[in-house]
Amino acid sequence: MPIEWAGSSPDLLLVIDRESREPLRSQVERRLREAIRAGRLHGGERLPSSRALADGLGLSRGLVQECYAQLQAEGYLVTRVGSGTRVAVHRPVPQPSAERPAVRPALLADFQWGVPDLRSFPMADWLWAIREAGRTAPASALAYGDARGSAVLREVLAGYLRRVRACAADPERIVVCSGYAQGLRLALHALARSGMRTVAYEDPGSPSTIRSAAAGAGMVPVPVPVDDRGIDVEALTATDARVVVVTPAHQWPTGVVLAPERRLALLDWAVRRDAVIIEDDYDAEFRYDRDPVGTLQGLAPDRVVSTGTVSKSLAPALRIGWLLCPPGVDALVTEHKYLSDRGSPALDQLALATLVESGRYDRHLRRMRARYAARRTTLMDALATHAPGIAVTGLAAGFHAVAHFGPDTDERAVVTAARERSVGLYGMSACRTSGATAPAQLVLGFGNVSEDALTAGIAAVGDLLRGDGRGPHGPHSGRV
Amino acid sequence: MPIEWAGSSPDLLLVIDRESREPLRSQVERRLREAIRAGRLHGGERLPSSRALADGLGLSRGLVQECYAQLQAEGYLVTRVGSGTRVAVHRPVPQPSAERPAVRPALLADFQWGVPDLRSFPMADWLWAIREAGRTAPASALAYGDARGSAVLREVLAGYLRRVRACAADPERIVVCSGYAQGLRLALHALARSGMRTVAYEDPGSPSTIRSAAAGAGMVPVPVPVDDRGIDVEALTATDARVVVVTPAHQWPTGVVLAPERRLALLDWAVRRDAVIIEDDYDAEFRYDRDPVGTLQGLAPDRVVSTGTVSKSLAPALRIGWLLCPPGVDALVTEHKYLSDRGSPALDQLALATLVESGRYDRHLRRMRARYAARRTTLMDALATHAPGIAVTGLAAGFHAVAHFGPDTDERAVVTAARERSVGLYGMSACRTSGATAPAQLVLGFGNVSEDALTAGIAAVGDLLRGDGRGPHGPHSGRV
Repeated sequence: MPIEWAGSSPDLLLVIDRESREPLRSQVERRLREAIRAGRLHGGERLPSSRALADGLGLSRGLVQECYAQLQAEGYLVTRVGSGTRVAVHRPVPQPSAERPAVRPALLADFQWGVPDLRSFPMADWLWAIREAGRTAPASALAYGDARGSAVLREVLAGYLRRVRACAADPERIVVCSGYAQGLRLALHALARSGMRTVAYEDPGSPSTIRSAAAGAGMVPVPVPVDDRGIDVEALTATDARVVVVTPAHQWPTGVVLAPERRLALLDWAVRRDAVIIEDDYDAEFRYDRDPVGTLQGLAPDRVVSTGTVSKSLAPALRIGWLLCPPGVDALVTEHKYLSDRGSPALDQLALATLVESGRYDRHLRRMRARYAARRTTLMDALATHAPGIAVTGLAAGFHAVAHFGPDTDERAVVTAARERSVGLYGMSACRTSGATAPAQLVLGFGNVSEDALTAGIAAVGDLLRGDGRGPHGPHSGRV
Repeated sequence: MPIEWAGSSPDLLLVIDRESREPLRSQVERRLREAIRAGRLHGGERLPSSRALADGLGLSRGLVQECYAQLQAEGYLVTRVGSGTRVAVHRPVPQPSAERPAVRPALLADFQWGVPDLRSFPMADWLWAIREAGRTAPASALAYGDARGSAVLREVLAGYLRRVRACAADPERIVVCSGYAQGLRLALHALARSGMRTVAYEDPGSPSTIRSAAAGAGMVPVPVPVDDRGIDVEALTATDARVVVVTPAHQWPTGVVLAPERRLALLDWAVRRDAVIIEDDYDAEFRYDRDPVGTLQGLAPDRVVSTGTVSKSLAPALRIGWLLCPPGVDALVTEHKYLSDRGSPALDQLALATLVESGRYDRHLRRMRARYAARRTTLMDALATHAPGIAVTGLAAGFHAVAHFGPDTDERAVVTAARERSVGLYGMSACRTSGATAPAQLVLGFGNVSEDALTAGIAAVGDLLRGDGRGPHGPHSGRV
């Protein structure tokens, strides 16, 4: 029932709902706040006396007095002897904007890279692991903990990384973080505090991530070219960098494996330069044609910061990653992790430890390896059918490939035309420091695309992909 | 069965376990890596030929060749025509240190502040909420999401904060973060990018958190005194700060409520100075003697960044907090959140939304309010019995109190003596920018101390606490 008051006070619609579960007092306060915020009651305006309002609303005067006192304590109202209760004067408040971000239309197939198959996330296993973690965790696990992360997870990760990635993993030097982006920031911050000023990185690679992390740490980022044997260590040596970020096992995005002599040259560079290598072990879990290459970290744990994450092996939304740090770097990384966010969520960490220890993590990886291998075959088949002649490289591992166009193809035009056909394609230019669109290449992610969508998507853009097929022909390239 | 080889190669104990579930090839590779890492095989040393090693171990030559190729690819070995396979030369690797952090002895009672009752964490409800979230979340929720956080949680939080905290909450301007520490960093970073150079903060307060966050943002931190009506707005006006961090509803750590005229003066300062107020709504959930005071943010959403967290209401280890941002600040905060960690974990956010929507969050808060009220009474009773005369303030809300000593008491001596009796006490000096130990005060946290431990702990240190009881006598002080 709407009630108005009049006389010495402005007309004010104050709706009280006696059927509501919200207490009357709360309703009056809320309505008054809303009226003030919406500008229906202006600064300086006088409110009815508590008696008048109480009479008007059929409430007790005491209740209205309590409301006024509360709103006075909160700063909405001012009470002065002789002048009654008035709305406090402060700057008018703009209304929350009604803008909402535009919704992207659904695509026939979205070859976005970096996203694993989200429909295959082992939700039942994860929920089981969370339940086990919650059931068995002591109350102390719910406090602010060690900023390095749960000791249980660090122990389990160390064992796992020794076993699967040939890491020299000491749980005391593992810092759990929220993924690669945070891990890189923490590492660069720590190294900047150790006097490092320049950070080299692979080009093509992830220039925007590196450059923003470098800026955050006050370091200068320097791109170093990648060829078909991995990062060019001579070019690296020519820079003044004492930190380099590399993806040795499967270069992002070219898919090249760092050649054995380059690995040794890189370690040699690190020793001579007194430098640190940040190794992004980003998709170590998914290899098809060959065994995984062990980490650089295992060879030189005093020179290498190794970063890992479950963003590709489980799901990005879990936000769990880790850093294996050399002595001296671990304390600085831990301090910065503490300052940044006090540590990562504990139950999620305990759940991951439970998942790995139970063998369910390995089982999931085996399942996904088969699934991605099938998608990879489907992609190759679809390309052979619909875009014969296009060269594709980088397929030895992971869930993306690089497609190479001839010199006459305009990368941006292909991407735009594909989008008009509801197919998401992504150009290599975003991975190049220069942003150059030549040579024209696509980075084709197939992790989160079903086999049906893969085939339909490639069929829809086949004519756009047909080119002269010239491109690098490394050991993992395939002409289809 | 240990096997040695001799001749052109060093004696090397290479243990192969044919009963193991680990494949033979993996065993050989692992043992060789370990031998190289441990320095049992030195850089440059020649390995036996693959044939010799295969014969020695009773393995096929092909298997040993595969091992050598793998370790060569990883950089452990080098193969040169005419010189056989040798260990790669690189700097010797120090062994992981055996240092382990010292374990703290258990305390009779630990009056650590800032920690809620961890044993009362509603684990069953949380696991239920996680399960519901996992069961109902679409696969897309597992991708890299909106860096502001889950739209579902932001919507639920907005409703909750409007209802319970009188916030003017727009879900589009909420950014989910990992708690107060990260929220403060994000806010200061955004404000620094808007040209703010100096950030004022309450003294006493949380000087170390503010100063490290300010340093991270490149801002200058300036302390402003707090008296028994809250932050001194005149002193604030005398600084050149255009940002201030305040705890208006329950000043940390004094427990003072910002007086109505100070609230208005603070808002007035913000308008005149074109400044921003960062409101830490840190323990809004737990009030005993009076109704909660609505947020400043509700009065002036265009001037106030409001921060909240579940660290006190549920548990710190969940690492979930939020920022309500004024227009213009939200985009900068979101960008920095994206760069920092790409966003908070999604399932945890969905679980919190489920918990709030189901009413179980409110139910937990009601239960905890009663529990903390009982502990507060127990604390007062124990002090009245064992330390009569000591003045205690700040008990209107939250789960800590301030105990005031006379001028002859040495705060540090009390803390040290209590520790010798296995009682954890914490001095006010840590909350003061100057670190001054006078006036001698204790910040007594009772959130995570059982009633039995509370009584036993105070009994054990009663004689240390007995003083002349002089101290401020605000509306919430009590002489016991």
